[in-house]
Formats: sequence, C-alpha cells, structure tokens
Amino acid sequence: MTSTTGAAEERLARAALTRIFEPGDESGGAWLRQYGPREVLARLTTPDEGTGARRGWLGEVGERRLAGYRARAATARPERDLAAVAALGGRFVCPGDQEWPSQLDDLGAAAPIGLWVRGGPDLRLWALRSVAVVGARACTPYGAHMAAGLGAGLAERGWVVVSGGAFGVDAAAHRGALAAGGATVAVLACGVDVVYPRGHAELIARIAEQGLVIGELPPGDHPTRSRFILRNRVIAALTRGTVVVEAQYRSGSLVTARSAQRLGRHTMGVPGPATSGLSAGVHELLRGEGVLVTDAAEVAELVGDIGDLAPPRTGPVLPRDLLDPVGARVLEALPGGGTADVRQLATAAGTTPDEALGKLYELHSLGFVERRGDTWRPAFLAAEPVATRRGGA
Amino acid sequence: MTSTTGAAEERLARAALTRIFEPGDESGGAWLRQYGPREVLARLTTPDEGTGARRGWLGEVGERRLAGYRARAATARPERDLAAVAALGGRFVCPGDQEWPSQLDDLGAAAPIGLWVRGGPDLRLWALRSVAVVGARACTPYGAHMAAGLGAGLAERGWVVVSGGAFGVDAAAHRGALAAGGATVAVLACGVDVVYPRGHAELIARIAEQGLVIGELPPGDHPTRSRFILRNRVIAALTRGTVVVEAQYRSGSLVTARSAQRLGRHTMGVPGPATSGLSAGVHELLRGEGVLVTDAAEVAELVGDIGDLAPPRTGPVLPRDLLDPVGARVLEALPGGGTADVRQLATAAGTTPDEALGKLYELHSLGFVERRGDTWRPAFLAAEPVATRRGGA
Repeated sequence: MTSTTGAAEERLARAALTRIFEPGDESGGAWLRQYGPREVLARLTTPDEGTGARRGWLGEVGERRLAGYRARAATARPERDLAAVAALGGRFVCPGDQEWPSQLDDLGAAAPIGLWVRGGPDLRLWALRSVAVVGARACTPYGAHMAAGLGAGLAERGWVVVSGGAFGVDAAAHRGALAAGGATVAVLACGVDVVYPRGHAELIARIAEQGLVIGELPPGDHPTRSRFILRNRVIAALTRGTVVVEAQYRSGSLVTARSAQRLGRHTMGVPGPATSGLSAGVHELLRGEGVLVTDAAEVAELVGDIGDLAPPRTGPVLPRDLLDPVGARVLEALPGGGTADVRQLATAAGTTPDEALGKLYELHSLGFVERRGDTWRPAFLAAEPVATRRGGA
Repeated sequence: MTSTTGAAEERLARAALTRIFEPGDESGGAWLRQYGPREVLARLTTPDEGTGARRGWLGEVGERRLAGYRARAATARPERDLAAVAALGGRFVCPGDQEWPSQLDDLGAAAPIGLWVRGGPDLRLWALRSVAVVGARACTPYGAHMAAGLGAGLAERGWVVVSGGAFGVDAAAHRGALAAGGATVAVLACGVDVVYPRGHAELIARIAEQGLVIGELPPGDHPTRSRFILRNRVIAALTRGTVVVEAQYRSGSLVTARSAQRLGRHTMGVPGPATSGLSAGVHELLRGEGVLVTDAAEVAELVGDIGDLAPPRTGPVLPRDLLDPVGARVLEALPGGGTADVRQLATAAGTTPDEALGKLYELHSLGFVERRGDTWRPAFLAAEPVATRRGGA
C-alpha cells in the first residue's frame, strides 16, 4: 500500500528532522509546511553542488546555518532512534497520527516536528484535559506545598498535570499528582531516554510508568539553555491552561505563561507574599492578564469551561464501539450505577493498575467516566454520540 | 444677612441631625434632599398631634423608628456639640461649605449629613489626593509590614493616607504615613472626641495634630458594630482608591473595597500566601475586579491617573492669589528652582512644621508643589490657571 509506505517514510523523515532542526526552528517549520518532511530531508541530505543558485529555497537561512543542518542531516539515523525509543517502550508521535495532540499546531511554524513519547497512555486524549503547573526550581517550602496541593487536587478532579520534570515546583506538581494516584506528563528539554536532572532518575522513571514522558529531542540529546526555554512553548500549547506557582521576574515559567496567553490558553498564578522575590514574577503576571488562583478547585473551575480543546462534559467524543480493547474492558468493568477503584477495575479488566489508570484518564477525556476522590464512575450520558471529533477513530 | 443666617441655621440643623439619624440612614438622607435639614429637624421636634395623617411624610418609616427619631431630636443640643468640638480645635463641615469633600455626594441618600473634623488641614483639598489603606485588626506581622510600607511610600509620593484608626493594618498605615512626615486621615466610627480603641489614645492625638481625625458621629457618641460597617463607605467614597492589605472572607475591609468598587473608585489588594486565612478575602477581591498591588509605586501609578476627583497634575486648580494667607506664605517660601524641607519652610513662613506640612499637602492637591522624599519643590507650571474648579474660592 503506497499510502502506508508514504506515511512510514514521512514519519521516518520527521524523526530524522528532530535531530536536524532545533526545537521551534521556524525556517525548518515553514519548509516542512511548504514542502513536506520527505522533500526537506532529501534536500538536506543531497550534496550541494557548489553554487548558491542550486541551493534554491534552502539558501534562505544563510550559508552557515545551512551547513549546520547538512552536517546534522549527514549523521541522522532515524531508524536507530526509533529503535532506541521502542526499546524503552516508547514511540514517536507526529502530525497525522491518531495520537497527535493537534492543539500543538497552534504554534504554527514553531510547532514540534514530532514528539518522542514514553509511557502507555494516549497523549492526545490525556492532553485534552490537562493543565500545566510550573514554577521556580529554587522554590520556597510554600511554593512546593502549593504545587503539590495543586498537582494532587487537579489529579483528584480528573485533570492531567503537565510540567517540566525540573526541581522545585515542577517536581512537587508531578509528585502531587502521582501521590493522588493521578495522571501526569513530564515535557523534557532533552531526549526521553536522558535523565535530567540526574537527581530525578526515579521520579522520571515513575512518571514514564504511571504517566507520560515526552519531548521534541531525539534519544540521547541533552538540554541546553535555549532548549529549556523552547520546551516551555510545548507545555503551554499542549494544555488548556498554565498555573505559575513561584517565579522571579523574567523566569522561564513566565515564558510558559506568556506563551499560553498568546495561544489563548488560560494563564493563572498563585499569589505569595509581596515581600518574596520568588512571587514577584507571579504578581507581575497577575497584574496583567493572569488570573489569581489559590487552589485546584479554582483552577478546575477556570479551565473546565467548555472550550475548543476538551470535549464537552455532557458526552463522549468517540462512540463506545471505537474504543481500544483495553479501554473498552475497563469501561465495561465499571458498575452501572456505582463506583469502583483502580485496583478493582484492573482486576476486572485483566490488566495492571497503571494501565487501567491510563485508560481511565483517556475515558475521562472522552467523557465516559468521572473521578470522585479515589473512585471512578460512569459519567451521565444524555445520548450516545454518533460523530467523532477532530477526524478521530 | 439673611442668607448667612440661613446657612448658619442649616449647619446647626445638620449638626443636630447627625445625632438623630444613624450614619447612612437613607430615609433621613432622602428627606434631607427633598425638604432640607431645617424642615426635617423642625418636623421631628414638633410634637405629634396624635393622628397618623398629621405625620405626613415622616410616617414613611413606621411608628417605631419615628418615635426613636423624635426621642433623639428632643435631646439634641447642636450648639453644645459644636462648642465641644471647637474646644478641641475642631469644626463641623457640611455640604455647602468650601471644605466639604463633594465626592461624598456620590453616596446619594446615604451620604453623610456632615462630618465632625479635628485637625488643621483642609479636608476637601487633602481628600482630593488620598488613598485608603485598610485591613484586618488581627493582622500578621507581614500585613503590618506591608501596611506600614504602603503608608510611608504613599506619603513620600505626596498622597494622603486614609484609614479607620483601628488596630492592625489601619494603625500600621497611619503610623507609616506619620513616620514619613506625611499626611494621614483617621475616619472614626465614633465621636471625634472619643478615643476608640483606648489603646490608640496617643496615635489618634498625633493624627489630630499632624493630620485629620474625622467622623459622622457627634461628640461623645460611641462605636457600634453597624457604625463600623457604615463608616467604611465614607472611607471608600472620600478617597480615590482603597487598598486592602489583609482581610478574611466577609471582613469589614472587603465592605470598604466593594463600596469603593460600586463608587467607581480604584480597588486594590496586596496578595499574601494562599495558605493564609488573612489573605483569603484579599484574594477573593483580586479574583474579581480588584487590582493586585505590591508596593506604593504601583498604587500611586493606578490612582495617579488623571481622574475626576483630583486636579490634573500639570497645574493648580486655584489661582495663586486665592490661597489662604498661610498657604500663600508657605508657597512663597519655596525656593524658585530648588527644594526645601518642612522645617525650613515653616521657619520662613512663620508657622509650625505641622501647619506647614498641612499646607504643603493642600498645595500639592492644588498642583502647586511636588514632594520628593523629605523635600518639597515647586511643581512645573505651564501656565497660571484662570478658572477655579468645583465652584471653589
């Protein structure tokens, strides 16, 4: 089948291009949109015959940058990268895939070429009901307390907690969600097989098991200052809103918040003492467009408004018979009128608690189930929908 | 002169009515607007001849309340009250007076009948450039620190700091202004000769000396719960904006802030830890219309916008030759191109430092002078104005 082969080649080309273009490279992004990944990769790997005229549109970026692209293109081995991530139980997700979170396309030419993903759950479904909680690495005990509380409280309300896997606020938010038996996604500024910071080896492994670890950079790539900054736009675009817990003036978390604002996502901040430099950036945000929030209920109230990213709460976006087999079994295991916890559902559906939890969050995004504390129950469905959304299924 | 006698009689009637109607009594306020203070007082002091029909419009409020009005009217002794306040160096200011802060009329039927005033400065001129700083009595050290900083910082920028003379945030704001050699006004919920709370005897005496102590209630009257609450509307209406420093849910400070909002004044709040119950009310305010502020510069920036209450900053509202003699001498004492401190100006103008300071704040409201730290200098005047505002002079 030509189209399947075409799709596979395109995926391979995108995987290669994640090693060639830095995250957010808008020249690369524009070429990709205009010529497609296979053509861009082919041009970059075809030897230049020495005249500027022959370079054609590649010449737009100037001699030096082009030489850099070509050098990296010459060493790109996408099959090896795909195998390396597959060995970790991961995959490469790109535009055109069912799992691609299409809200990332809001980033235009700066949209990710694709995402390297570790973890079982469906990224698109999780991202539909996700909130980012970000903030200072060197946060205060107050900041850590608030981040952990938000992480747990959002998880308890069925929201997926997205953060950057860093020390401080990020870690507290991830841990809060994990501790509440909830869903969390770490968006890294390095390969998903690279442990950064080193001290977070266990945390990131746990997120990969219970949630998702994702990033734009291919296996083995390390973070740089600009990669950290550009990573923030992915967090902002992926989620329905960003909460900044503690941030100094001009911090990376404010970059995330401003991206979120520009993308039309909700931007929120947790206040702190006016005397604390670590709250100064948050207060600056709150003096602008940001909304002050003090707990998970207030965050959920804001992002829970019916928006274009999440399915309306009244019904699912996928017909029940298009669910994947495990998802269908978990849903079937739910008692019609009552509630059940993850362990009960995992046993009944013949799977692990981690997989069952992942499926429950997917089912939640789809509007089939609701979470109440530690238990899950069927959502009230007015009617079974007939159409799918975003070309899904 | 009949009109002077009329004005004096009207003032006497208003003074008597402050003892008869509780602050904010809208029935009394409506009568006052319709029939004038002399007529209302005359009706209340004329014995009722026993038939409901004869009571006419007084009957609107019902038997019991009317009996209360009559009982209080029978014992009102306005000449004695005026003498008592005069003995403290005070006065009674009411609508029609040059010193009446006409923005209080924004309160409609709930506007004060008049204000009992202790202290030298001109209330109307001070109120033109004033900001309220209010908050919890049982504030935290953080709240006291912020209130004192705002009081001092606003005073240093030439703003008059208005508060309620209570423990906690109010006291810290007054003291901050006083410590910076600035202008402050205490709006009491009792007679201006009553010391409440007792522990503030010295503070209130100092405010009466260096600033203004004002209130709606006649000499000797004590505060009640409802008087505290109704006092807040005067603080809100008098000032260009209200800053709430620490406040629990449903606290009196929030009442002030909401009044300010309804009156179109700026409403501001100082954030605090989301974990602090004493910041919960402020955060609630900031999730609504309130603007988050963290220091005096941010407050001044907001309330400093040209508005209908304050004269534009580019020039005075009164021609120089209509200034009172002491004000004129203080202005004259200012070196043309340079700056001077209060002590120097007092000496040069032949008055006390306290009076000189009061005049400087009046001159500031009128646009003649600017404050820079501890010194004063002439404001840059593009042109001498020819017209007065608000029918002044």
